[in-house]
Amino acid sequence: MSGSTGGAPQIDGQRLLGRLDELAQIGAIEGTHGNCRLALTDEDRDGRDLVGTWMADLGLDITIDGLGNVVACTEAGRVADSVMMGSHIDTVATGGRYDGNLGVLAGLEVIESALSSGRMPARPLSVGYFTDEEGSRFAPDMLGSLAYVGGMALEEALEITDRDGIAVGDELDRIGYRGAAPVPGTVPFAFMELHIEQGPVLEFHGVQIGVVEGVQGISWTEVTLRGQSNHAGTTPMPLRRDAGLAACRIANEVRDLAHNIGDSQVGTVGAISLVPNLVNVIAGSATMTVDLRNTSEAMLQHAESRLDEIVSRNAEAEHLEASQRRTARFEPVEFDTAVIDLVEKCAAEAGLTHRRMPSGAGHDAQMLARVCPTAMIFVPSFDGVSHNPAEYTAPPDIEAGANLLADVVWRLANGEIDSEIVESGATT
Amino acid sequence: MSGSTGGAPQIDGQRLLGRLDELAQIGAIEGTHGNCRLALTDEDRDGRDLVGTWMADLGLDITIDGLGNVVACTEAGRVADSVMMGSHIDTVATGGRYDGNLGVLAGLEVIESALSSGRMPARPLSVGYFTDEEGSRFAPDMLGSLAYVGGMALEEALEITDRDGIAVGDELDRIGYRGAAPVPGTVPFAFMELHIEQGPVLEFHGVQIGVVEGVQGISWTEVTLRGQSNHAGTTPMPLRRDAGLAACRIANEVRDLAHNIGDSQVGTVGAISLVPNLVNVIAGSATMTVDLRNTSEAMLQHAESRLDEIVSRNAEAEHLEASQRRTARFEPVEFDTAVIDLVEKCAAEAGLTHRRMPSGAGHDAQMLARVCPTAMIFVPSFDGVSHNPAEYTAPPDIEAGANLLADVVWRLANGEIDSEIVESGATT
Repeated sequence: MSGSTGGAPQIDGQRLLGRLDELAQIGAIEGTHGNCRLALTDEDRDGRDLVGTWMADLGLDITIDGLGNVVACTEAGRVADSVMMGSHIDTVATGGRYDGNLGVLAGLEVIESALSSGRMPARPLSVGYFTDEEGSRFAPDMLGSLAYVGGMALEEALEITDRDGIAVGDELDRIGYRGAAPVPGTVPFAFMELHIEQGPVLEFHGVQIGVVEGVQGISWTEVTLRGQSNHAGTTPMPLRRDAGLAACRIANEVRDLAHNIGDSQVGTVGAISLVPNLVNVIAGSATMTVDLRNTSEAMLQHAESRLDEIVSRNAEAEHLEASQRRTARFEPVEFDTAVIDLVEKCAAEAGLTHRRMPSGAGHDAQMLARVCPTAMIFVPSFDGVSHNPAEYTAPPDIEAGANLLADVVWRLANGEIDSEIVESGATT
Repeated sequence: MSGSTGGAPQIDGQRLLGRLDELAQIGAIEGTHGNCRLALTDEDRDGRDLVGTWMADLGLDITIDGLGNVVACTEAGRVADSVMMGSHIDTVATGGRYDGNLGVLAGLEVIESALSSGRMPARPLSVGYFTDEEGSRFAPDMLGSLAYVGGMALEEALEITDRDGIAVGDELDRIGYRGAAPVPGTVPFAFMELHIEQGPVLEFHGVQIGVVEGVQGISWTEVTLRGQSNHAGTTPMPLRRDAGLAACRIANEVRDLAHNIGDSQVGTVGAISLVPNLVNVIAGSATMTVDLRNTSEAMLQHAESRLDEIVSRNAEAEHLEASQRRTARFEPVEFDTAVIDLVEKCAAEAGLTHRRMPSGAGHDAQMLARVCPTAMIFVPSFDGVSHNPAEYTAPPDIEAGANLLADVVWRLANGEIDSEIVESGATT
């Protein structure tokens, strides 16, 4: 490898913040700082057009694939050799301006600051954004990056429809983003994603940087309990078959389960629906959701089997019929240990407070991790709020995160950990 | 007292069942055995007209008061001396054919069988039905009997409106049931109400007759909990302020509370609403209802103070704001001990299996109990189901209940327990 031996050029924080602001004007939600750019809508197209202008202004080589994933590289035809940065620019219906956008625009900023400095690393740099990461309009989420790494056939992805029956392929044609580049896409040398944490951990600990080790595995279960609806006054306690009570007992034990397993285990009962849901009627049936997440597949399976036991035992105690349905299941993703170590080392050298952590939410990086050495950097989310117009990350945190991204990418692109990457058995 | 010295004439079970069936044709819910005769609707009027025809056919003296309460007596102007039977003939929107109707038509049957036998007891007999017992259209429930005993001024009752803003007084005029008799109404010598249990206790114990000692006091509380809505994946367990979890913990402790207090205490969380109620979002707020009932006012107050403590402790543990609102509160009602003893004695002598029990639901008898010696007789409800077209009580149980009513009323009307009633300090 050859290239500049100096450190990465400092990024221009004002330019990055300015672009975040400009992009957030497209699909802005009036009276808030948030926006709505659902995948493949007119607003998404306008956002893509704006980011495309910035990419073109830097003279980058832009490719658009058959699913609308866009990659811009400092050297034409060299994406396979590049260190890629990126994320997504679609949002949820009531989205903030940082989720996804930060990873794309920070990648662009890293490239621009390098180009402006006149110093470039040995490897080319690229930045991409992937179609429909949020999954708010077309399921599943992370659709673009899933197909990019070969996890779903292009034909299948194009036929996915939204609630109104409109297909991904037709919308890509309509907004002019069905490109010619092949899907699956070109695998880069490595991939880095800067993202807001979307949780409260960094803020709570007063730490600037999250060194993301992987993405939690997810297990969603819908539990349905059937008992007997009866009069709350005339039915003695021992004769009740109260589906609502059993749902509440299960919810309590899900909290206990998470506490007892500890480590990264989380467990949430976010939705409970009782029937008939009246003050003076014992609930005859209850439907509830259980969201279990762990960074360890073995522990996640352990949590699932504990949940089975909790549901069975509580249903039996209240003489209920119980059924369960797994509504989502993703295995945990572990990022490349050498790249994780590099992120941590760079953060330390930059004097940034940092802590290793899992991601509780899904990200495009977890798809890229299937095919190349990958890691992520988190910056703090005010109050842990995300998917909300109130989403906010302080400018100094954004700048620190982007500079850390630049440093990590610079070193990856200069071959600083090539030997460790090979040793860690990454899949390149 | 003078009158027939023989026992009460046997009632005609077929005639009673026939009238229950005929009345149930008015406002029949197609495809079910249930019906809908909301208070003061056209269907209620048609039901009133039919029952009025039966009363008139027996030559009874019928009075209609200013709130549409109807009393028919075997002797004109002697309601004050009579033993009154009765209940209501309005229903909930999805009602059965027994709730209320049984008490009115069994009273009519007791009178008809006595008149047919040519033997009458010393006191006159009367049967009445009270306006809007269900409260499904006009709140509060037991409106007619409440006003009849002087618990609400007539003027106030007439101005109560339904959801469409239609007033009780106007509807009484429209259906022709605003009568001339004064409100409050004439206090009878005693009052007896036969009713279906509307609960599973008699069926569970295989017992034919419930000797009702009183009506449980009721305390309804709406609890609102406010925490913080957050991502179910990215928010570590220790940083959560999960309003849904606290609601579930409170629901569990309400069950424990009822179990620990024991006796007649029941406790029900019938309604829980989480916001936003999504699988992957920690509930930011929760609203739940708590229904507490006890036959003892002191114990009900104890249960309420325990609930306060349960809500406060669980809200604090999860760092939530909690507020409570009492949405209903009625003190327990105790029936006349001499009349209760008489019901029990008559049941035993008739060879009917029986057990003393409270009523978990409200009834017109609890209003009459304020002004005269009163008790109730329960007959079994199939599966404990009521307020439902599937409501069912087997013909032999109906017949047994009506004959027991006849026996009790006969003895009351022949002065069998006059001395005990005085001793028990009844309010006549």
